[in-house]
Amino acid sequence: MCPHANGDNLPTDPSQMVPVNISHTNGTTTNGVKARPNGIPGAQPRNPYAPRYADFLSNVSNFKIIESTLRGSQSSCLYAPEGEQFANAFFDTKTKIAIAKALDAFGVEYIELTSPAASEQSRSDCEAICKLGLKAKILTHIRCHMDDARIAVETGVDGVDVVIGTSSFLREFSHGKDMAYITKTAIEVIEFVKSKGIEVRFSSEDSFRSDLVDLLSIYQTVDKIGVNRVGVADTVGCANPRQVYDLVRTLRSVVSCDIEIHLHNDTGMAIANAYTALEAGATHIDTSVLGIGERVGITSLGGLVACLYAANPEYVKSKYNLSMLREVENLIASAVEVSIPFSNPITGYCAFTHKAGIHAKAILNNPSTYEILKPEDFGLTRYVSIGHRLTGWNAIKDATNKIKELADVRTQSMEDVDTVLRVYHTGIVNGDFLVGESDKLDKLLQRHRQSSASDLTTIA
Amino acid sequence: MCPHANGDNLPTDPSQMVPVNISHTNGTTTNGVKARPNGIPGAQPRNPYAPRYADFLSNVSNFKIIESTLRGSQSSCLYAPEGEQFANAFFDTKTKIAIAKALDAFGVEYIELTSPAASEQSRSDCEAICKLGLKAKILTHIRCHMDDARIAVETGVDGVDVVIGTSSFLREFSHGKDMAYITKTAIEVIEFVKSKGIEVRFSSEDSFRSDLVDLLSIYQTVDKIGVNRVGVADTVGCANPRQVYDLVRTLRSVVSCDIEIHLHNDTGMAIANAYTALEAGATHIDTSVLGIGERVGITSLGGLVACLYAANPEYVKSKYNLSMLREVENLIASAVEVSIPFSNPITGYCAFTHKAGIHAKAILNNPSTYEILKPEDFGLTRYVSIGHRLTGWNAIKDATNKIKELADVRTQSMEDVDTVLRVYHTGIVNGDFLVGESDKLDKLLQRHRQSSASDLTTIA
Repeated sequence: MCPHANGDNLPTDPSQMVPVNISHTNGTTTNGVKARPNGIPGAQPRNPYAPRYADFLSNVSNFKIIESTLRGSQSSCLYAPEGEQFANAFFDTKTKIAIAKALDAFGVEYIELTSPAASEQSRSDCEAICKLGLKAKILTHIRCHMDDARIAVETGVDGVDVVIGTSSFLREFSHGKDMAYITKTAIEVIEFVKSKGIEVRFSSEDSFRSDLVDLLSIYQTVDKIGVNRVGVADTVGCANPRQVYDLVRTLRSVVSCDIEIHLHNDTGMAIANAYTALEAGATHIDTSVLGIGERVGITSLGGLVACLYAANPEYVKSKYNLSMLREVENLIASAVEVSIPFSNPITGYCAFTHKAGIHAKAILNNPSTYEILKPEDFGLTRYVSIGHRLTGWNAIKDATNKIKELADVRTQSMEDVDTVLRVYHTGIVNGDFLVGESDKLDKLLQRHRQSSASDLTTIA
Repeated sequence: MCPHANGDNLPTDPSQMVPVNISHTNGTTTNGVKARPNGIPGAQPRNPYAPRYADFLSNVSNFKIIESTLRGSQSSCLYAPEGEQFANAFFDTKTKIAIAKALDAFGVEYIELTSPAASEQSRSDCEAICKLGLKAKILTHIRCHMDDARIAVETGVDGVDVVIGTSSFLREFSHGKDMAYITKTAIEVIEFVKSKGIEVRFSSEDSFRSDLVDLLSIYQTVDKIGVNRVGVADTVGCANPRQVYDLVRTLRSVVSCDIEIHLHNDTGMAIANAYTALEAGATHIDTSVLGIGERVGITSLGGLVACLYAANPEYVKSKYNLSMLREVENLIASAVEVSIPFSNPITGYCAFTHKAGIHAKAILNNPSTYEILKPEDFGLTRYVSIGHRLTGWNAIKDATNKIKELADVRTQSMEDVDTVLRVYHTGIVNGDFLVGESDKLDKLLQRHRQSSASDLTTIA
């Protein structure tokens, strides 16, 4: 491929050589060679995480979120389910409404609720939420039963997932025709719901362990009947991304309706699987806040938003109120009494914490282009860990007062702050002073300055 | 493709039709049609999560783990780093040794440590760990400097990552030859380390934002020099699985040495990216316990093991002491003072909790084949959440005593247990009895039985 392979025919005269600019648009992503200016004014640096042009199927910039916290939490081990015999210990109607409103304010396109046919409580909650007049569409699910269907349509939901068992399907190759059979009830339910102007979805469980031909037959059948959307699910949470891609892409070629995916997180791959499903042509992703759901849960709302934001920040910022993410997660976390995991994308304690004084010596890249996820876009500030934890609230106040005091005299750099805290910490640990003994701290700082005389630029 | 498309030439006589068994090996993965017995005795059901035959590159069943907790924790915001000015607040030598031993007992192939050239403390810790005689190989990293190299080789490490800056490389097409240039120092360091029988690795940062040609040039060069392994890294944590697959696969075709990958988890995709990297031909994965590392951290040991176990349980069980996973995670969690996230794969609170009384009505699958991740393989038991939380330890003891009492009479089914606890909970909540009032509880249970007379099979 390289023309130089044929050595004989090459010019050996340097004056015959012409420099070629191989940098990307404005040269910021060229590594190892000096960036050369390009001739294109205002050209955007290429986002290496954006969907590639060849991925014409990709819906990474054209998707909808179906927020299932109000359904999924039902199956969580953290949650006491509704049942005939006792009250809902966590999500009373008031809480459900608060959650629905928060999700709507965040901007999810759909909110999924427990089946209104499950109990009177879930029916009236469903109705109450539908009455809120939210921007989001309200979805739920029903058994393949006209009783359920009638209850659901009266609540005011915008869409319904009809759970149809395999015994309702039959496929026969008969008399030269590919015929598929579906029970009359299924047709009746689907057409009844559609006649009310309500979206109909059909989903199956455990799609990745299903016989592919059966699965495609069934989906092809319901697509022909006219459901708005079909859903696949990794119910055991063990599917891997390329496997998800293959199934969704294959399904994409079989049905004309929308494709929804529901992914469990037992092996920690639910977010990545959701991203990859969108690349393959899925249109709707089921999420829940903090992933709460059966066992380890499903694709988390925050995690999904994070990776889609990395792929196309402008699109995601325009769709969702990102600064509400933390609030939404806090709301659910307190409702089910869990802590936000320290390693949670975006909102985890550590997510944007950088070490002071450590400049990432990027081997192949300019450190100033290091950050893709901008905390400000999520209403967060960057926490700079100055390398240690102060013990005790008083110590924090004390040290912060000292910093403020110094800052009143002149602007403090990161290194200044760093120094104050290091000196403070060492002093406390060594017993050189106690919290509140400001004079002693001043002496220590002065001594530090003198011993760092060669670093006069660090601290004035 | 379907022969029935040409209707005219088909037999219309049913006696001409022959049934075809389209089930998989023993029929357990056929859905929607009755399983038909196959003729192959002892045939294993096909694992739908296993690597596919076409993936001849896949190392999902042939990989090594480089456990980087003892290095990565350094960069974690949870961790007070070693520094000239103050002591290591978390991982003193004793703790580091305990962690190294635990990781070794778990069975990781490599343990990575902080550079011994960073400080006297890290040098002596490195030496101490090398002296432990662990099965795992000990790795560390050095700058491209003979001083660092001499320190490192004296500690007894088995492998060294030489951090080489891009300014050490040059690529020229000159005089008809593809020439790559590398500094004499780099050659000197690499050859010195190799002469001591120590593995040499070369890694770069931020590989996914690097110019692909530059990156491949550099890797090709170091491969030709004879490094044992090259490493790529998603330092910003935003790469997606298929992107990872493409880069690793491309690199696989360029170098002959091993390929290591280091993946950050800012968008929650590090585990899936690691899995996909192995599918593409990577050989070594960097992990840390609970993913602890810079910002949200890297691929977690437990998460990676979970998804690889799903793909090939026998292989993973033979390599690692899975029952130690929980202990290892607890050790690190207490050392850095975090909680195990409730949604942590395998060891999270919710990981194996199922709801009693809810039989997964799998649309397309037999519920008894539901479980892929077997808690017993990880030394864990299955927790059955009986649908509610009992308030108070006394209540738990009391209710459990009642269950035990009943079980002494006859074996209790899940529904029996469920019933006892539901009745108990309702009774407590409604004030029908107090904890310990066994007679009143008996009356309630009796009343429940009578009102559920139609469900006599549920409770005797």
